[in-house]
Formats: sequence, structure tokens, C-alpha cells
Amino acid sequence: MNKHIAAYGEIMMRLEVPDNLLLRQAENLKYSFTGTGVNVTGLLSQFGYDTSLISAVPENSIGTAAIGAIRRLGIHSDFIIKNNDNLGMYFLEQGFGNRPSNVTYTNRQQSSFNTTDISEYDIVQSMKGVDVLHICGISLAMNNLTQNNILTIVKVAKEQGIKIVFDCNFRPSLWGDNGNQRAKPYYETILREADIVIMSEKDAINTLNLTTTKESKEEQLEELLLVVAEKFNIDIIAGTIRTIQGSNQNNIKGYLLKNGTMYYSESFEVNILDRIGTGDAYTCGVIHGELSNMDPQEMVTFSTAACVLAHTISGDTPLFDTDDIIKIVNEEKNDIER
Amino acid sequence: MNKHIAAYGEIMMRLEVPDNLLLRQAENLKYSFTGTGVNVTGLLSQFGYDTSLISAVPENSIGTAAIGAIRRLGIHSDFIIKNNDNLGMYFLEQGFGNRPSNVTYTNRQQSSFNTTDISEYDIVQSMKGVDVLHICGISLAMNNLTQNNILTIVKVAKEQGIKIVFDCNFRPSLWGDNGNQRAKPYYETILREADIVIMSEKDAINTLNLTTTKESKEEQLEELLLVVAEKFNIDIIAGTIRTIQGSNQNNIKGYLLKNGTMYYSESFEVNILDRIGTGDAYTCGVIHGELSNMDPQEMVTFSTAACVLAHTISGDTPLFDTDDIIKIVNEEKNDIER
Amino acid sequence: MNKHIAAYGEIMMRLEVPDNLLLRQAENLKYSFTGTGVNVTGLLSQFGYDTSLISAVPENSIGTAAIGAIRRLGIHSDFIIKNNDNLGMYFLEQGFGNRPSNVTYTNRQQSSFNTTDISEYDIVQSMKGVDVLHICGISLAMNNLTQNNILTIVKVAKEQGIKIVFDCNFRPSLWGDNGNQRAKPYYETILREADIVIMSEKDAINTLNLTTTKESKEEQLEELLLVVAEKFNIDIIAGTIRTIQGSNQNNIKGYLLKNGTMYYSESFEVNILDRIGTGDAYTCGVIHGELSNMDPQEMVTFSTAACVLAHTISGDTPLFDTDDIIKIVNEEKNDIER
Amino acid sequence: MNKHIAAYGEIMMRLEVPDNLLLRQAENLKYSFTGTGVNVTGLLSQFGYDTSLISAVPENSIGTAAIGAIRRLGIHSDFIIKNNDNLGMYFLEQGFGNRPSNVTYTNRQQSSFNTTDISEYDIVQSMKGVDVLHICGISLAMNNLTQNNILTIVKVAKEQGIKIVFDCNFRPSLWGDNGNQRAKPYYETILREADIVIMSEKDAINTLNLTTTKESKEEQLEELLLVVAEKFNIDIIAGTIRTIQGSNQNNIKGYLLKNGTMYYSESFEVNILDRIGTGDAYTCGVIHGELSNMDPQEMVTFSTAACVLAHTISGDTPLFDTDDIIKIVNEEKNDIER
Amino acid sequence: MNKHIAAYGEIMMRLEVPDNLLLRQAENLKYSFTGTGVNVTGLLSQFGYDTSLISAVPENSIGTAAIGAIRRLGIHSDFIIKNNDNLGMYFLEQGFGNRPSNVTYTNRQQSSFNTTDISEYDIVQSMKGVDVLHICGISLAMNNLTQNNILTIVKVAKEQGIKIVFDCNFRPSLWGDNGNQRAKPYYETILREADIVIMSEKDAINTLNLTTTKESKEEQLEELLLVVAEKFNIDIIAGTIRTIQGSNQNNIKGYLLKNGTMYYSESFEVNILDRIGTGDAYTCGVIHGELSNMDPQEMVTFSTAACVLAHTISGDTPLFDTDDIIKIVNEEKNDIER
Amino acid sequence: MNKHIAAYGEIMMRLEVPDNLLLRQAENLKYSFTGTGVNVTGLLSQFGYDTSLISAVPENSIGTAAIGAIRRLGIHSDFIIKNNDNLGMYFLEQGFGNRPSNVTYTNRQQSSFNTTDISEYDIVQSMKGVDVLHICGISLAMNNLTQNNILTIVKVAKEQGIKIVFDCNFRPSLWGDNGNQRAKPYYETILREADIVIMSEKDAINTLNLTTTKESKEEQLEELLLVVAEKFNIDIIAGTIRTIQGSNQNNIKGYLLKNGTMYYSESFEVNILDRIGTGDAYTCGVIHGELSNMDPQEMVTFSTAACVLAHTISGDTPLFDTDDIIKIVNEEKNDIER
Repeated sequence: MNKHIAAYGEIMMRLEVPDNLLLRQAENLKYSFTGTGVNVTGLLSQFGYDTSLISAVPENSIGTAAIGAIRRLGIHSDFIIKNNDNLGMYFLEQGFGNRPSNVTYTNRQQSSFNTTDISEYDIVQSMKGVDVLHICGISLAMNNLTQNNILTIVKVAKEQGIKIVFDCNFRPSLWGDNGNQRAKPYYETILREADIVIMSEKDAINTLNLTTTKESKEEQLEELLLVVAEKFNIDIIAGTIRTIQGSNQNNIKGYLLKNGTMYYSESFEVNILDRIGTGDAYTCGVIHGELSNMDPQEMVTFSTAACVLAHTISGDTPLFDTDDIIKIVNEEKNDIER
Repeated sequence: MNKHIAAYGEIMMRLEVPDNLLLRQAENLKYSFTGTGVNVTGLLSQFGYDTSLISAVPENSIGTAAIGAIRRLGIHSDFIIKNNDNLGMYFLEQGFGNRPSNVTYTNRQQSSFNTTDISEYDIVQSMKGVDVLHICGISLAMNNLTQNNILTIVKVAKEQGIKIVFDCNFRPSLWGDNGNQRAKPYYETILREADIVIMSEKDAINTLNLTTTKESKEEQLEELLLVVAEKFNIDIIAGTIRTIQGSNQNNIKGYLLKNGTMYYSESFEVNILDRIGTGDAYTCGVIHGELSNMDPQEMVTFSTAACVLAHTISGDTPLFDTDDIIKIVNEEKNDIER
Repeated sequence: MNKHIAAYGEIMMRLEVPDNLLLRQAENLKYSFTGTGVNVTGLLSQFGYDTSLISAVPENSIGTAAIGAIRRLGIHSDFIIKNNDNLGMYFLEQGFGNRPSNVTYTNRQQSSFNTTDISEYDIVQSMKGVDVLHICGISLAMNNLTQNNILTIVKVAKEQGIKIVFDCNFRPSLWGDNGNQRAKPYYETILREADIVIMSEKDAINTLNLTTTKESKEEQLEELLLVVAEKFNIDIIAGTIRTIQGSNQNNIKGYLLKNGTMYYSESFEVNILDRIGTGDAYTCGVIHGELSNMDPQEMVTFSTAACVLAHTISGDTPLFDTDDIIKIVNEEKNDIER
Repeated sequence: MNKHIAAYGEIMMRLEVPDNLLLRQAENLKYSFTGTGVNVTGLLSQFGYDTSLISAVPENSIGTAAIGAIRRLGIHSDFIIKNNDNLGMYFLEQGFGNRPSNVTYTNRQQSSFNTTDISEYDIVQSMKGVDVLHICGISLAMNNLTQNNILTIVKVAKEQGIKIVFDCNFRPSLWGDNGNQRAKPYYETILREADIVIMSEKDAINTLNLTTTKESKEEQLEELLLVVAEKFNIDIIAGTIRTIQGSNQNNIKGYLLKNGTMYYSESFEVNILDRIGTGDAYTCGVIHGELSNMDPQEMVTFSTAACVLAHTISGDTPLFDTDDIIKIVNEEKNDIER
Repeated sequence: MNKHIAAYGEIMMRLEVPDNLLLRQAENLKYSFTGTGVNVTGLLSQFGYDTSLISAVPENSIGTAAIGAIRRLGIHSDFIIKNNDNLGMYFLEQGFGNRPSNVTYTNRQQSSFNTTDISEYDIVQSMKGVDVLHICGISLAMNNLTQNNILTIVKVAKEQGIKIVFDCNFRPSLWGDNGNQRAKPYYETILREADIVIMSEKDAINTLNLTTTKESKEEQLEELLLVVAEKFNIDIIAGTIRTIQGSNQNNIKGYLLKNGTMYYSESFEVNILDRIGTGDAYTCGVIHGELSNMDPQEMVTFSTAACVLAHTISGDTPLFDTDDIIKIVNEEKNDIER
Repeated sequence: MNKHIAAYGEIMMRLEVPDNLLLRQAENLKYSFTGTGVNVTGLLSQFGYDTSLISAVPENSIGTAAIGAIRRLGIHSDFIIKNNDNLGMYFLEQGFGNRPSNVTYTNRQQSSFNTTDISEYDIVQSMKGVDVLHICGISLAMNNLTQNNILTIVKVAKEQGIKIVFDCNFRPSLWGDNGNQRAKPYYETILREADIVIMSEKDAINTLNLTTTKESKEEQLEELLLVVAEKFNIDIIAGTIRTIQGSNQNNIKGYLLKNGTMYYSESFEVNILDRIGTGDAYTCGVIHGELSNMDPQEMVTFSTAACVLAHTISGDTPLFDTDDIIKIVNEEKNDIER
């Protein structure tokens, strides 16, 4: 039987200025519906898994459009409820060359997702038959309600033996002054329950107050993540090292810590069509790797290749099959596929 | 020297689904920047007046785009400040035939305009040289801060002998339960200061607790507005009677009360390209009529013709010259103009 | 518990030339996925029913896109299989005024749906829990395989006590020479099993070899459909009378025969944004009327109003709620809905 | 063998603001290549005639695009030469309802066509095998060079027994002060050679200094055109009477004077998608009517129907077959054509 | 007098998903008309040759659009007939970076071209005045009818002393199991008649059952093509070696065998805007080189430069002049050309 | 108080073919309003300066659109007058890879700007409060009227102590035969008045008849510009050295001569989104550097970084803040900015 991955996460509307224009230059926006949970369940659905999203959207035409978009990706929408009036939105001005992309959020705090109490959802029902639950640290930064929501859902999931995948995603700007201190207890609580964690060296430093005197990213990661994995008893901690050449080109190298050993992928050069959501493809790689019993080296390479390929897909949500990832792993360079 | 009309009003982003599509059907939105104050000063600027807008926009790329759009209309932007993070937005699904247009607002309460205290503006400086100040009743419905802001700016303007144009625009849904009772004192205060008022029979009933036993709209208006004009000592009260045939076709008839007499325009049949903002064109007609000393009958016909023509212009903001309105008044039916 | 309506029908790609252009004038096409079964289950899904589609799409990116589009409409896609290489397509040049719309089909015979044997589907599983099955006469015109497929699925459905809705939709051009003769036995077989039938006077004449000497459409319908209803023991036979004013404007009047009595709606004048698929909205009205126990007069009016409203929605698939239909029934003329 | 119609006329670039926007509102333009000669030969080519255009375009990418567009319409391009640097252009803001369309010309005087001397063309070769030559009065308004060019080409054509079709198209704004006086000798010279003339009562008054005391258009036409036909020995004088309801709707009635009798079509109500170039469809109707020996009543009805249908086609150039016109003549009201 | 190149080849509709999107992500397609014969005659027409296409398109609006598009390229359309109902189509999802482009064909077998017998064309007339006939191996893969058609037209052409250009283009997927064996006699027959052949080492191995033990492409080509040229007495065999860096960047090196000597161009690095149809530009380079008596080294460099430049033109059909190619040959690096 | 920079320069309409298409391939154009003076004052307005443009646009909808566009950039439009009928236009076909961009001008000589005598402007008023006046050498190439206009405005400005920035921009094609000789006196007159000059080695050679035997650009610039600076007593002479890799990639190195010393920036590699107008960003860097008292090395680096960043902005007019430039100077490589 198919494994089932659920995510509890916000659906946002992405409003993209076309043709590398600035908002002030244009007259049109391309919109789509996205979010870490959407991206992860959307891609895993294409990998062949059953997936579902637990979320809240407004009781209006925006909410209706959002649900349609989620369903179009193959995600089950039975646990997306309509509540309150706003959907989180962000405007995207795509960068070019030396000009970085620019994201402008609007009214995230008042969104349906961030104002809907966990009691509004039928959480117990939504966790039935679920094998893996994905949650994201950004929700921890919103407000007390969302913090409580996450802790509750993690608790329910754990009670049912569901594996927890936690993407740390600590954003200092969202936490404000003394954010590190306020974030720490939440992150600690969740890390204690998590089985798979996406964490960078900065996440470790910011959310757990850890320190390192190492210089290279690789050495920092090895020192810090080993501490985290042991302290919180986490099966897998993983992530990517990104080197920015410009907004059209980056280098990506994946890392994955399992059983006390750090594994690295090679460094891939990526041409960037759309950078947003590529980290979620990496997460999907790790989840799929674990569910399909890849060995750690294979898993980190597969996950990094998924992340690499995600840069070539327009929009936040990665859209490809595992076969397409394998071609990247094998460095196949193909002419037109007919 | 040119007369100068200022408006204190919100700038909103209009996000229109193209080609009569529903939001759930489309992938693209056409955006523009609008608001009652924008529309009124924008059209009066084209009539040849000096105009300026007093408003607040967010300190980000959306705010920058909004200011550019306002300037493009010929409105002075010196008193538009950047403050806080959000711009009010609305999504527009254009109707067709028997299907009405649908407007979905998002996060209006948290907008820069609705969260910026009047003390943040340089109100005294912004009123220098101003002849007419336009304000809109929608701002009264927002929150205590905006209510206070309007009362303050009206007070300052009045002290400088500036004429006040007040568009009642009472929207029951924005005021909620017992809205009429809560609205009454604010409306009364402003009506006392206002020189030109845009008011329907429903505005009179809802905001002033007036009643009528008359049946026809015309009789109701005549009964109610005469009471209002006398009680609050208002020079002109005006508005339009709209008969809906369908979302592509309406009939519009203007009314204008001056010196105790009600004047009507003929009833115009209008083909609708874009219905939003057409009332603001009517307001401009009245302001221009008054500033150019039209007689009341001429004024009501001119204003209604401006309103009629505004239905043929895409977007909220009317874009035409007084010459174009005169052609409607004269019922010129023109072939292509070369 | 929710009633469940399933449809067995083809998914086609609609390729529409934008802006009322001809194909030879344009460079771009707007595409969507449609079909009688798609339209019926799509609209009923919005009415709140569970719906599913039994169909076949090609094993390539076109098929993937088609399934996503079906899901976006809220239709269950578990019984849409991927098989063979082609999707039926049609090009649409929208008419204007005295110029009628033009539809050009391409390669319908070779489509996945029309080349997939019924044995490839898991029909028994797909009929579980289904209350109503919708089928369309167009499939009967394709080839022996589709004729056999329909007879088989109707048989399975009938055995499980599922109500059959049959849309006759006889198209002479698809049946070719002596089409009437060849069509007759198929239509007779299905009419015998059908509970609700969408049939025009022309369908009755063409598929059953009936004749009438009456002149008006109403008299013809009354004479012919009564014969059909009795002979085949059909609960409801219904349809619309369309009077063409031009490609932008028609008049629509519904009829519905139940228990030997013919009921009519009033005649609605419709402004046409998109005429295709409006008959399917009528069918949905009848199905919903029957499932919600409307009386016949209410049902015919509701169904006709659904058909009328469908003309105001771009694309083949109607998108609205029953509330929106009730407003048409009540002849509410609404200004912008905010 | 196919008859061959040639036109000597300017190719212009039409730059249309999309979606009924004003130039100041938009960011995009739709462009196409047009002109009276283009429209006439383009439509006649679809009627099945051999057609060719004698014209000049600039020696750059604009000229190349223009030639490609002409060829796409089925017109022979062998006598379109590349010379000088500019193509005549016009910007089109489509009207709506009470708002008329607006055309803004740019640099017409300096266009390749209006600065290329007739000696640059191989006129003798271009007239080989030609049965009908179409010329337009607008060229007479440009400058001495174009006036001389037209007189020359008409002379050459006449010497070879080619029928001359002359569309008077007198535009007072192009001729300036005392335009009537300056235009008169040119018009007289060409009318003397012309076989078929498109002329309104205003053309007659403006270019020939004729007068009438009649009130109705029909009486004026009958009085004036009879004088013209006799004086200049013209076979056919024809045209249309247009009554403007608004920019979306007109009424059109054709007239045609032959052998001293005036024939009229019925008055057609037209919904307007694109009004420009519809007169050229009328001209084509007359040419086709004459070449296919229609009787005068049939000819005027057919020509008017062609004009009516042309209003439903986007762009200047009419695109349809004679069959489509016949359906308008027969007042067939068709649903979708499949 | 101009040389005349004719092609016998299929016209296909290319349906391209815009902006590097996947079909499942988009709502719009850009369409154009293409095919190897279209591309070759289209580019040669721009080089200044007379060109014509012998083909069949459907008797509907798609066929009409196709003919217009061919004419727009400057190709004579007199021998394109309308027959049957379908045009071959392919959907193109443009690749990006490590993601290759994806082409999905639909219903090629049933296209008008592939179902029209050679007897339907006026082949003798179409070959009058022709100097070169271009044919493509893809047609050999379709069905018995197209195989017979090609053999027939080659025979007629040869009898009139027309040079045959044959592009081998062996696609294993089109030939299916044992394709090599079935293809061999057809390829042998045509190679015997061909004067210029476009052939890769894979074509030689697949269609002629040749083998090589050489490792580098260059050595393989030298060994195999020499055998082919001698055995079938072919003047020129040519082609390109493509090295894929990613879907945005390739390297291209041309080869050309003449009189027993293999000539190579340098290797060009190409940035890819549109990869499809670039091989046809190479073919045009060879044809033009031969008709203008270039020496072999000049010819291979010119042809490769044409191929390189074709990658920078959107759409299948290359659009540039020989001058533009010479600039690539000379490695001119130009700033904006004004 | 803010410094005020005025420019006297032409406003042109840029008509860009989208998506790297050729004009002959497309149906749509994206238009914007531009010109050296527009670009310079537009960018300086974003840097925080007061700016104004002295120009003339036609008295029609094109002129209205142009003024709106200028205002949208934050430039004061009080001294843009409406006069005559034409706006200068250019069509842009964007290059790709080895294919250079192509610009086609149309009717520049007849533009409102190039036919409006200086006496039509209120020059004295327009120079009030101005600190810097920017003029461009292209206007010198137009005709006697524009030559005289520039000399006059420079004289008035100089009398008021305004600094003159002169961008030489000698284009041989605009000056025609013996252009160098005819240009020399004009350039000499203006150079005598100029304080900051943008000049390349070619400008020096062409306009002043200077010669050099040096080989490298750097040596040539050092030799020639030193002579110019001394002879005409110019504070700063500056410019960029551009090395073309292809139309998507260039290298840019700035130079700046002050007090007898030549300063260079490093060489920046630039990915090109839009190359046009990037020189104007360099000019703005120099003006801002001078007004904010940067030292010469800082100034040349800052200016070059401004030029580099301008390549990443679509359209002619650079749109960014000085902060964004500083990031380029510091070689910050940023991921998405949120």
C-alpha cells in the first residue's frame, strides 16, 4: 500500500511580476498557490505517494481558487478548511544576474492559516493512515496560536506513531528582537519529537544557542549537527550548502547526517529559472530516500539532484518524477526528448 | 491661477482577473492603483486642476509602485508618505450579463493608510493653497484611528476656509451590527462641516436614522435630502439613481439638490466596460460644475454624463477631458475620431 | 451522506483562439480540458456532491495536464487511466454578432478514450457507492469499441441500482450516411435503461425514427417525448429550446416531461460569453432537482436558470453555486457584489 | 481563368491598444499591416481571385514584416518594393459604448509609399494580366508626388483596358484649408477614368462642389450621384449609409447606382467588434458582384452583407468567404458551426 | 534567373508552452507551422531563392492558417493542397539548464500529409523549373503510402534532372521493432538517387547496417560516410556533431564529405533560445554553398554558422540573411545594431 | 535642500518585440517612453534628487501617454510642452547569444522635439533653481533647429551658473558624409562650456579630429582625453570600455579623468537583460559622485557598478537606489531578498 505523507502548513498566494520586471514597471502578475507544505506534498504526490494537506483558507473566491490549485497538484484537500478572510500573499520580483530576487510579504499574520485554532481542524481524523507528517519552522514565528497549533499536531501525530519531518527554517526577521531566545524552547520541543530535520548551521546557532569556532561551512555543520542529533536523538539531519554566483547561477551541495556520519553530495552547478521552493525538493528527496530505504550516500545525492532540478521549474512547487532526478544523478545530458 | 483639489484617501491595489474569468480559472491578474481619492483627483487633474493626494503606502516595492501610478495620473504625490507594511487590496472578478461582478477585499484594516495616525502627515503644509478637500465615508468605517484622522483633517481644512466635499458611501457590511447607531455621530459631525455631499436615500436612512414613507426613489430623495440639507446647512447634495439591467448594462439618472430645489438629469442608458469608480466621476462633475459656476441643471447633466462616460473606461479611474463629457451631454454619436 | 455522481465520458482539450480572433489571425491559444462528463461532474461537485470521472487519457504530459485539470474542478480522478497516445482536441473560434462560433475537431477517433476497451477500467470498483451515472450519446457515434463500452457500463450500473442519466446528443455529421438507422438500436437499448434523458425533438426524430406533423417546437416536443417516455418507461425527459439572435445573444426556454405532463420555464434572454457546455449546466440542474426532490416546475426553472448562468462563464465547464442560480430564478439584478 | 485585381495603395502599420484600453493606460500594442488596398485585395484573394499590391515599404525589419503579412493574406507581393525608411503608422484606441474609437496617425507624409516616385515601380509589368485596378482617394491628399503617381498609374491601366475602381474617401482634415478647391481637379480627372466609384453624398459635395437642398441622405444621394454618374460616365457608384448608435452598434444600409437607378439594401443592425476596414468589404462586394454578373439589387445586398460581416472580424482586413456573406444575406442565425 | 528549391514535406503545428513552463502548469500555447521542408524552403527563400512546398493540409480553418503561415515565410503555396481532416501536431515544453526540452507528438499518422496519396498532387507541374528537391527521411517512417509517395516524387524529379537533397533523419522510435531492417531498402533506394545527403554516423549504422570499431565521432564519420558516398555515388554528405552541455548551451561542429575528403568547421559554442529546426539551417547552408559554388571548407563553416545562428531564433524556422551568417563565420561580436 | 538636475532631451517611444522574437514573427509590442534625458533624470530622481525634463511631445494621445510615463518615474513634467504631431520611435528586436540586438528608428527628424524651436519653451523659467543641466550629442546630429536649440539652452544655463553635463554620443550614421567636419564646431562650442563630459576615444577622434598611434583602448583614452580636458578646460571626462562576448554577456570597465589623472574601475562581467540605457546609468553615477563629493576612484567604481546593474533592468530607464549599487561595488552575492 502507498505510504501517506501529510503536511500541516500555510497556503500562500504567490504574485509574480513577469519577464524579470519590477513591480513598478509592470501591469500584470502571474499567480499561483504555494507554501512549504504544498511544495513537499505536491512533489511527493508526483513520486507516487498519497499526500494530504492540513490547512485553512479564506471563505471566498481566493480560498476556492487555492483549494483547486492544491487538488490540481494531486494533493488530497479533505482537511483544508475555509475559515476567516485572508490568504497570506507574497509578491515576487525575479532577479537577474547581479540583481537578487526580491520578495515582499503582505499581511501574513492575519491569514486564515495563522488565525485558525487547531481545534477548528479534525486533527485526529486527518492523521488517520498517515505515515509521515511534515511541519515547517516558519509557522513557529507567527504567533502564539500557530505555535500552539504546531505543538498540538506534533503531539497527536507522535501518539499515533507518525514520523515527524521538521524543516527548521529559522528566519531572524520574522522573530524580531531577542528572537533566538524566544524561539529556543519551541525548537527544542519539536526537535525532541522530530525524526528527520532540515537544519543549517545557522539554524543550529540561532535556535539552540550553539556555537562553533570552525571556519568552513562543512566543519561547522559537522560539529554542530552532531551535537543536535545526539542531544535530540534525531535519525537524520540534512540540508544544502548554496554558493551564490548570481541570481541566475548557484552551486548546490547537499549534506546528510545519519548514525553519526556526515555524507555529502558532489557540488552541482545550477542554472536558475526559479529558485524558490528548491529546498522543499531537497526535503522530498530525503523523505523519499528514507521511505524507499536508500543508503545515506545515495540519499544525499538523490536529494541534491532533486533540489538541482527544482531550479529549472517555474513556480515554487517542483514538478517532476523520480526518473527525472535519476538522470541528474547520472549526469545525463540529453538533447530534446521526443 | 488653477484651483487646487486635495483628497485624503486610501490607495488600494486592484487585482483584476482578465477576460471575464473567475479567479479560480485564471493564472494572471492585471493590477492598478485606485481609491475614491485617487479617482477624484486623477480625473480633476485631467480637467486641468492642480490636485494632490494625502495618503500612506507601505515602505516597500508595492508602495513605490503605488506612488508612481498616482503620479502618472497627474496627481501631486508630495504628501503621500511611506509607513508600515501593507497596502489595501481587492480582487475583482468582472461580471457578465446576468452574472454580477464580484469584489473580494483582503486585509484592509491593516493597510498603511488605515494604521497611520494623522500626526504622521504634515497636514498643515498639505492644506496650503488647497481650495477643495475631498473625503470619503468608507474611511469612517475602518477603525478609531481613521475616524479620528478624518475629523482632524476636516477641522484643519475648515479653519483654512477650504470647501469640504464628502462622499457618504455608507457600507453596512463594513460597520457590522448596530452600525447605523455607531456611524451616526461621525456622519453628523462631518455633514455639519461639508459643503458638497454625495448622498443616496439609503445613506440618509442608514447614517442619520431618517425615515420616509414615499415609494419612488425620486420622492424619497426629495423628502430626505431636503431635511439633510437644511439641518446641516449643506450647499449641494447630489448622487445618481442606478437601474441594473445586467452587469453589462445599467441606466443612470443624476440628481442634485441646491437651494431647496431638486434637479434631475435625463436617464442615460450605459454599456458597461468597467463599473467601478463611475460614482467618482459623478463627484468630479459636481466639483467642476461648482468651481466653474455651472447652473444646477447644467451641473447635474454634466455630472451624470461624466458618470456615464466613466463606464466606458477600463479601470477604476476615469480618464477623459471635459470636452468628451460635453459630447455625451449633447448626445453626439460619433464614428471613429481621426 | 453525500450523493455520488459518476460520469463515463471523454476528456477533450479545448484550444480557443483568444479575443474573438480567427485561427489564421492569431499566434496563441488558450487551452483547457473539457467534455460533457467533465462539465456535469465539475458543476455537480460545486453543488456539493461527490463526483468522479471514468475516462482514459494519454500516457504523456497531455494526459498529466488533463488529470490535474479534472482534479482542480473537485472531481475524483481515481478512475481516469492512462492509455495510448492521443487526447481528443477541438479548436474554437469564438463568434461575434452575426458571425457564428466555429469548432474544428481533430483526430477524435484515435483518442485514448475512444480506443480504450472497457475491460481496461476497473468498472466494478468505479461504480461502488455511485448513485447516478451520466453518459452521453456522442460516444455512441465514435466506433464499435465505444458503443460496446457504453452498453457494458450501463449494464453494470443498472445491476447495482444506479440511476442512469442519458444525454442523447445525436450529431448527424458524426454518424454519416444512414446514421439514423445505425444509431437506432443503440439509442433504444440505452433509453430502455435510462431514468433521466436529455432529448430534443430532433433527437427523437433522428434516433427513434419518430415523426410529427406539429409545427411549433413545443407541440412537437409534447407529442414526441410523451411517446418516448411511455415506450421506454423514462422518469424524466428534459431539454431546452434555444432561439438564436446572434452569437452574442440567445433566448433559452427549458422543458421537462414528468409523469405525463410537460413543464416549461419562462424564456430567458441570455448574453453569451461562452455558449459551449451550457446544456450540461441544464443537465446538472435536472440531476440536482431530482436528487433534492424539487417539484417539476421548480426543477425546470432551476435547470434553465443554471443553463442561462452558464452562458456567462468562460470555458466549457460551468462554475457557480446553487445560490447563484437561485438569484437568476428570482431575477435579482445585482450591482457589484462585495 | 481567374480574374486578377491589383491595387495601388499604402501599407500602414496598425498599432492597437488591447482590451479597450487607452494608450496611456496600457503597456502593449497589437500590430498588423493594413491599408485600403491591402484590405480590398486581401478579401478578394479569399473570394478566389488573383490579387496583387503595388506599394513601397521601408528597407528594414518593418518592411520585411509588412511583406510577410501581405503574403499571409494570399496577396502577390512581387510589386512591393523596398525604398526609403518609414512605414505609415496609426495608433488605435478602440471605443466602447458612448465612447468613440480614436485613431492617431504618425508621420504619414514621410512614409516609403508617399515618398516613392511612380518611376521606381515597374508599372507596366505590374499591370500585365490585371483586370481591375483599385485606387483610393486618400493618396490624393498626401502630396504632389502621390497625386502624380495615381494619375500616372490610372493612365497606364486605362491604356491596357483595365477597369478602374476608385474609392473617393475625401478626408477634409488631410486636405486642409481650401482643400475642396485643390482636390477638385484631381477628383475630376480620376472620375473621368473610373468605372466603379465608391462615393458618399459628402464626397460629391466636397470634391465636386455640388450642392443639394434635399434633407434625407437617400434623397441627397439620389440627386447628387445621378449628376456625377452622368457627368463622368461612371458605370456604378455605390456606398453605405451608416447610422451610429454607439461605438458597439451601428446600422448599415447600402446603396448602388447603376444605369440611372438607385438600389438599396435593407438596413442591417451590426454589433461591432472592429469597425475599421468595413467599407473595404463593401467595395469588394461591388467588385465581386460586377465580375460575377450579379444584378444590381443582389449586388447591393451582397455588398452590404459583406460590410456587415466585416464588423465582426478583428483587424482592418476582412477574412471570410462569399459563402459566409450569403448566410448574412439570407439572415441565417446559426448556433456553433462544428 | 533565381534557382528554385522545392520541398516535399509535412507541415506540422507546433504548440509551444510559453515561458519554460510545463504543459500542466500553463493555460496558453503559442502556435506556429513548421516541418523540415518548411524550415528549409523558408530559410532559402530569405537567402533569395525561389522556393515552393508540396504538401497537404486539412480542409478546415487549421489548413487555411497553415497556408497563410507558409506564404508569410515567402514560400510559394501553389502546390499545397487541402485534403482530409488533420494536421500533425506536436507540443513543446522548452527545457532549461539540466532539464531537457520535451516534445509530445499527437496523431501524426492520421495527418493530411500522411494520408494523401501522391496521385492527389500535380507532381509533374510542381517539378517544373525546380533545380533542387528536398526530402526528409521522417516521411519514410510513417506508412506505406508516404514511403511510396517519396519514391515516386524522387523518381519524377530525377527524370527532370533535379538535384535531390535527402536528410536521413532516422528516428528509431518511429520505426519500432526491427526498424533498421525495414528501413534499409527505402534508404538504399533513395541514397542511390540523392546528390546531397545529411547523415550522421548513427544514420549510417541504423539504416545501412554498417559497423565501425572507431571510438571518436570524427573517426566513425570518416570511416562510415566514405563507404556510403562511394557505394551510393553521393556528391556531398554532411552533418553536425553536437555536444550537450545543458538545454541552454551546446557545442556544434560541422562536417562535410566531398570528393573523398572530410572537412570540419571549428567547434562553436551556442547559447540556445530554440534548438528545434537548427539542423535544417545547416542543410540550407550546404544547399546554398553548393548552388553558389563555395569550396568545401567554406561550405562547412558557413553551414555550421547558419546552424549556430538558428539557435538564437525563436521557433523552428530560421529567419536571417546570408549576411548575418557571415558575421558568425567572421566571429564578429556586435553591440546593438542601429 | 535637494540638488536639482534638469535635462533637455528627446522623449522617444520604444516599441519592443517580446520574448526575443523578430518583428516579422510577432503580433505584439511592449512600449515605453525613453531617451537619454529621461533615463538620466529618471534614475537621479530615484537617487533622491529633484529632476525635470525640458522636452516637446505631440498634441495627441501619444503625447499624453508620454507625459504620464515621465511623471511615473518621478520626473517633473512642467516644462514638457505639447507641440506638433509626432513622437520619435524605435523598434527593438532583442538579440540573443551570437545574434546582436537590432534597433530600427522611424521618423526621428519629424518628431515634436526635433521640430520645436527653443523659443517655444520657457527656458528661463525652466532653468530656475537648477544645479545641473544634462544634454546629449545626438540632438546635435538632427538638424539646424536642434543644433541651435542646444547652443541656446547651454548659453542660458551657463549664464545662471549651472553645471553642464555633456554626453558626446557621436553617431557617424546620423551625421552622414563629412559628418566629422560638420560636427566639429558644434562639439567644440559645447565642450568649452561643459563641466562633465562623457566621451570615448572614438568621440574624441571623430568630433575633434584628434589622432593617436596608441594601440590599447586605455592608452588611446589616456592620450586623447588628457588633450581634450586641457584644451577645453573640462573637470571630468568619463566613460566605459565595453567588451562584447555576445548579446547576453559583456564586460564593462569604467574610466574617469580628473585633474590630469585617469582612474579605472575593475572590469565587471555582466549578464544582460537589457543593454540599452546602461550608459545613462554610468552618467548618473558620475553626476551623483560629483554632487556627493566622492573621490575619483570611488566615483568611477560607483558609476561602473551603476552601469553594470542597469543591464539587469528591463527597459531603457535604470530603476534602483544607490544602496543597490553599493552592493555591486562590494560584490555582495545575495540570495532572495525577503
